[in-house]
Parts: sequence; structure tokens; C-alpha cells
Amino acid sequence: MEKLKELPGGICAPRGFKAGGVRAGIKAGASKRDLALVYSDRPCSSAAVFTRNRVQAASVIVSREHLKKSGGRIRALIANSGNANACTGETGLAAARRMAALGAEKLALRPEECAVASTGVIGVPLPLPLIEAAMDELAASLCTGADGALAALEAIMTTDTRKKQGALQCTLPRAHDIRIGAMTKGSGMIHPSMATMICLITTDAALSPAMLDRALRRAVDRSFNRLTVDGDMSTNDMVLIMAGGAAENEPIETEGEAYEVFAGALETLCVKLARAMARDGEGASRLITVTVAGAASEADAAVLARSVAGSSLVKAACFGADANWGRVLCALGYAGIPFDPAAAAISFKSAEGSIPVCRDGASLPFSEAEAKKILSRDEIEILIDLNGRRAGQAESFSGGSEGAGSGSAGPGSASAWGCDLSFEYVKINGDYRS
Amino acid sequence: MEKLKELPGGICAPRGFKAGGVRAGIKAGASKRDLALVYSDRPCSSAAVFTRNRVQAASVIVSREHLKKSGGRIRALIANSGNANACTGETGLAAARRMAALGAEKLALRPEECAVASTGVIGVPLPLPLIEAAMDELAASLCTGADGALAALEAIMTTDTRKKQGALQCTLPRAHDIRIGAMTKGSGMIHPSMATMICLITTDAALSPAMLDRALRRAVDRSFNRLTVDGDMSTNDMVLIMAGGAAENEPIETEGEAYEVFAGALETLCVKLARAMARDGEGASRLITVTVAGAASEADAAVLARSVAGSSLVKAACFGADANWGRVLCALGYAGIPFDPAAAAISFKSAEGSIPVCRDGASLPFSEAEAKKILSRDEIEILIDLNGRRAGQAESFSGGSEGAGSGSAGPGSASAWGCDLSFEYVKINGDYRS
Repeated sequence: MEKLKELPGGICAPRGFKAGGVRAGIKAGASKRDLALVYSDRPCSSAAVFTRNRVQAASVIVSREHLKKSGGRIRALIANSGNANACTGETGLAAARRMAALGAEKLALRPEECAVASTGVIGVPLPLPLIEAAMDELAASLCTGADGALAALEAIMTTDTRKKQGALQCTLPRAHDIRIGAMTKGSGMIHPSMATMICLITTDAALSPAMLDRALRRAVDRSFNRLTVDGDMSTNDMVLIMAGGAAENEPIETEGEAYEVFAGALETLCVKLARAMARDGEGASRLITVTVAGAASEADAAVLARSVAGSSLVKAACFGADANWGRVLCALGYAGIPFDPAAAAISFKSAEGSIPVCRDGASLPFSEAEAKKILSRDEIEILIDLNGRRAGQAESFSGGSEGAGSGSAGPGSASAWGCDLSFEYVKINGDYRS
Repeated sequence: MEKLKELPGGICAPRGFKAGGVRAGIKAGASKRDLALVYSDRPCSSAAVFTRNRVQAASVIVSREHLKKSGGRIRALIANSGNANACTGETGLAAARRMAALGAEKLALRPEECAVASTGVIGVPLPLPLIEAAMDELAASLCTGADGALAALEAIMTTDTRKKQGALQCTLPRAHDIRIGAMTKGSGMIHPSMATMICLITTDAALSPAMLDRALRRAVDRSFNRLTVDGDMSTNDMVLIMAGGAAENEPIETEGEAYEVFAGALETLCVKLARAMARDGEGASRLITVTVAGAASEADAAVLARSVAGSSLVKAACFGADANWGRVLCALGYAGIPFDPAAAAISFKSAEGSIPVCRDGASLPFSEAEAKKILSRDEIEILIDLNGRRAGQAESFSGGSEGAGSGSAGPGSASAWGCDLSFEYVKINGDYRS
């Protein structure tokens, strides 16, 4: 993981990609961009992960079809905000197909080489004529560099308040520098697995579709699937990666050192964006990282951590900077994973310091004032050790990001990310459509 | 189910029960009652259902022990509010045992004939000396009639804003009138299965512990287990029923007509209280009844209905009286139960009327103004028919309480109850301990 270097430029940081975004008029009111296009000037390997909700948006159905039909060779994405094109029946499906075809036509691609994504209100027909009318301008807006990436990102945002993008460079064996860039939107209806999120990842590395798929699934499992804002799994979730190969590395077609470097960098970027999404959760005032150590497996630890991060009562307590650790233990208790509550230890941590509040499943004496100070920061950690009986307990976490590992009873540790539950969340969601 | 008659008097409506409540000083601040005692002047059959959270309060552990040790012969309950005695380790367990022993001593019972319940903040040691000091006054407060029932009910309330109790009379074969009374507390940390709820049910019917247990489980499954306020399953949930037999009916020891009449009346009373709990959900401004028809089974319908009732986004939309039916379909989609979204129909209903908003999984044209009027009432229904293709669809619900049945594709229908998500919920839970 050494030698990761952050880059500017988001999805246009990798060589060979162009992006653009315009206003088509799908989003009511404001003069905001709402239609995005991203294009690789080379053929790509591609892979994607979609929502597991049984109700799936037309864009999800069509993109899955195109991924399959092209044999993992998607090289463009057309995406809109302001309308999810979900629960819109056969008409919606036809609209999504038409939207992909419009993008493909402008780029001289086959329709199945173009994926489509939509986000916004559910159940309202997609205003296709607005998209058709904007296609010339959209194609003309394509450009390399940071401006193109930013225009595309702005065009997929809904209630997002921050621009969530990033890019990394890393070095494969034989000194090949490759780049990975990503942009994501999503701040409400966010829950494992996935979210109302659209995430597009670009890379100039060369990989086979199969290895790209494997690396993507691993990264998503350890990032976006550990994210929860409100417990609602969306109809529109999609993470798409396109690998164009402009870096001209020897194509990664098997596991090995090059795959590991690539997959590790991809995971790092996805975790960064997942954290950014939690921080930008609807109405959020704090980013909450929940880390569980001492579980039987990483998978068990992830379920426990997500249960805590998803608890309305824990989230509301964090909003109030209230060190109500009993709610943390309670949320562990209903996660459906066996553990011994009488051995659990809990600490709260932030840039203000850390404070152990529970050991052996029971209260430790602690200063409420100090706890409040720690919990008042905009980034807080809840550290849980399922075998806190060994000395030092939660203090032994390695920075709180991926948990302890060494010294745990069980070998499993994992983090999940969420945010507090605020007045603002209710305000945003009590009147989203109006 | 005919011949059910509502009675005043709550848990003291059945003959042979006394109840009382006093202020012991466990609840900070106010001069509120916080210690309750309920006593049957006859030996009882008893049964109980407890939380399935792996983290269990001391009172739950001790009451389960006593139920078993007495062979289903609990005849008294001592309960406190202001402190959950959960996550309090061995000391907490000893305190719960001592609390039960104190109650039993005053009533000249064996300790295992006394159950114990606690509700309030988690992780703080139970102030046993306050309880000991209040025991004389508590025992002296026991009385028959509505006053005793009310004093006990007040003493178990926490963030509850309404007094939730009820009583019914029904007639068994051979013209035996029997009575069932119940009181319950709970308004936050409420989720299937169960809730931070304490529910005590009394009856003067004579039943064996085994038949009482069977009737209780059926009633709880169709009432409290279909209730969700915030997705958090508590450490302290308990529903206890005591049957004293003062009605002098022939004891119900097998299934048959008498059992059915009793079990039906018990279910009716539990549903009434579950609805009262949803209406009194923390911060709630509306009671939401979600009814699903056309599922493969009642159990499937119940899971689907609870998923909708538990969705933060649906709840926030209801707070805003926003007819955002797409969120309803979305919440059905992640419930984990197979169904065809393209066949689903959705209506909203209240005392203002009813409005179909979705058919065949897609939008119907409807008046937003009319929908807002319907959703602005304090009691609203979301009616879902999984096979809405047949004419009339959601209109065919039988009053919305237990769903359609006749005419459905699948035979399964069920209702779940919840409430909206309001600013007030966040306020209450952002600073509960302070």
C-alpha cells in the first residue's frame, strides 16, 4: 500500500477519459447541471455492482443488460439526476434504453457499450425529450482534466452537499504508474448493501474484465457495503468501473503482485469515498466510524459494526454528543451475531482524545464533560472490543480505521461508517418531492 | 369475536388483582411515580415473552428464571422506571434478585412467584436503597379498581406521553364472563420483535400455564411483534400475563372453543395496545398502519408490512404528509421476500378518504393536494396489494386492519404499525440521559 499518491482531477485523472455535464432541465427550479456523460477514448474492460433491492430502477436493469451483452466492455456512461426512472414500468425501461442509445450514438459506440444511471425522485416518468434536446450540448461539453470531471460530478448530485471525488496513483511491478479516479453521489437512502449511490470509477490500468470484477467486489464489500445513513436500500445503486489501459501496463489477467497493488489502491479509494458519503449523509453533522475487534471473522465484525452505525438511537445520541454507550451494546445485541456481552469493552474517540466507557459489559466511571467534548467533534469513533478483558482493550486499536487484529480473542475486525441523525435529516426527507 | 365488551380499570378490571405505584426517587427531577407493584390474591398461571436481544437486562434474566422455577406460577410483578438495570453486570443481577425478593416478602410469596421489570437508562447501577426505602409505602398503595391500575401504569412510564391500558370482557361457552386487562409502556427503542416495552396482562380466566403461553405467543406475534418505532430492539422487553382464575370458569387446558374465545380476545387487546404504542412513538405525530395483501403467507405479509413501517424515508415522508409511494415500493423491495414489483398496487387512506397512487408498480395520476389532505390526519393507512392487477385492488381491503384475504393472489395478509419520524424524535433521543 506504500507509494499511493493522491491526485487531483477525479475521474479524469486516469489518462484516456473525458467527462462533461450540462443542464437539461430535469431538476426542477435551480440552474443546476443534471445530465452527465463520461467516455473512454479506448475500448475498456468494465465491471459493476448493482443494488440488491427487488425493486430495480430501469437504469439498473439496462446497465446490467449492457454489461453482459458487451462482455464487460462498457466504455461510456450517461447519467442524470432529478429523476430516478424507478417504478416507471415498461415506459421507463424503454426510456432508459433510449437514453443509453442517445449517448452511444453521439460517441459512435454500440448501445451496449454505454451504461446509464439515474437518481432522484421515484415513480415519475423520465422526461426524455429534455435529454434528447440536450445531447448536442452534452457531447460538446466532454473534455479531459478536472473541469470535465467536476461538471459530470455536479450533474449527478441530488441532496449531496459536498463534491465527493478522488484519484490515486500507484506503481505496479516493473515501474508502471497507473491511476484510478472516482466520483460518487449519495447522501440519503443509504444502507448496506449500497445506497442511493452512483459511483463511477475510471482507471488507465489494463485488466481483464474478470480481474476487474474481482477487485471491484472486494473493494465495494469493504467500503460502500459498510456504509449506512438511514437503513434504506435504494432502487438505483450502481458502482461502475471502466479500465481503459492507457497506462500500457502488462494486462492484469491473474492474481499476483500487480493485482494486489491495484486492488489495494482501489479499496483505499473506495473507503475514502464511502467515508465522504457518510460525512455527507443527509442532515449529518458528524461522521461516525464504528470499529469492532475480537469477532469470529471479518464478516461477523462488519455485521456488528453496521448494526451500531445503523441504530437510530445511537445516531441520535451522537447528534446530542451523548455518551450513551448502553445503546451501542444494545445495537450489538440485536445484530444476530453470537458474542458475550459480559466481555465487551467500548470506548469513544475523536481528535479530542479517547475515553473508555464500558468494560466487561458494564459501566466504567468516566467524566461526562470529557465524553461530551470528545463526541462534539465532527468526526468520532466508536471502538468496540468483544474481548475487552485483556488489558488496555480498546486502546489497542490501530488508529481505529481497520481495527485491532493483533491481540484480539477473535481474529475478525471491521469498520463501518455512518452519521448522526439530526433535525435536518427529518426536514430534508419530510418534504423531498415538494 | 362478537360479544367483546370494553371495560374501564385496566389491569384491575379482572377480578382478584391489586395494583399500586409510588415515587421512590429513581427518576431524576420530577415528582413522578417510578415503582409499581401488581399482585394476584390467588395463585396464578403465568406466561411471558422476552426480548431476543443478546444483551439482556437483569430483570429479564431474573424474570425468566422465576417463571421457570415457579413452573409458570408468577403472581406478582414489581417494576421500576428511570433505570433499565441493563449492562450492569453481576451487581445488576443481584439487584434484580433482591428487588424481586423485596416484593415477594411484602406479599408473603416465594421469591420465584414475583417477576421484576425495569425500564429507563442503560448502564447505570440500580439504586436499590431507594427501592428498599419505598417498599412499605408501595405495599400500602395496593388497591383494587382503576386507581391502583393507573398508579402502577404511571410508575412504569418513561418518555410515554399517553397512558396505554385497556380491558375487555368476553363470554366463554357456558356463559362464563371472563375479563382481561393490560397496561403497557414503551415509545422509543421499539422494533420487532418487541420493544423497550413492558406489558403486563391480567385475567381472571382460569387456564393452564401451557395454554396461556400458547395464547400469549399468538397474540404477541400479531400485535407487539408487528410494531416498529425506530428499529432498535431493546434489552428489557417483556410481556407477562397472569391468570388468577377468579372467574371460576372450567380451566382451559386444551384447544377448543373456550381457548379460541380467550385467545381471540387477548389478541384484540394486544393489537389495541400495540396501536396505542405506535401512536405514542417517540416524537410521533401520526399512527401509520401498513397492510399488505396478496403475499404467499401471513408471515411474508408481516415482514413486508414491517419493512415499510420501519423505513426512515417512509416515516419522514409521512411526517411531511408527502405521498412518496416510491419509498413504499422501495422498502418492500429490500424486505427479503420475493414478489413481483410490476404487479404491486398502493393506496393511502385516512378518515379524509382514500387515494390509489400506484398500480402495476408504476404511478397513477393523482391529486397531490388531495393526497396531502389524506396524509395530514393523525391516523393514516398504507394499503399494499401485491397483486393489484385485479380490478378494484387496494379498495378491496376489509377496513385496512387485517387486509383483504378474499380475492388476493397470495392468501397472506397482515398489518404492521408504526409512526412518523419527526424533529421531536431526534430531540428526545439526542439528549435522553442528560
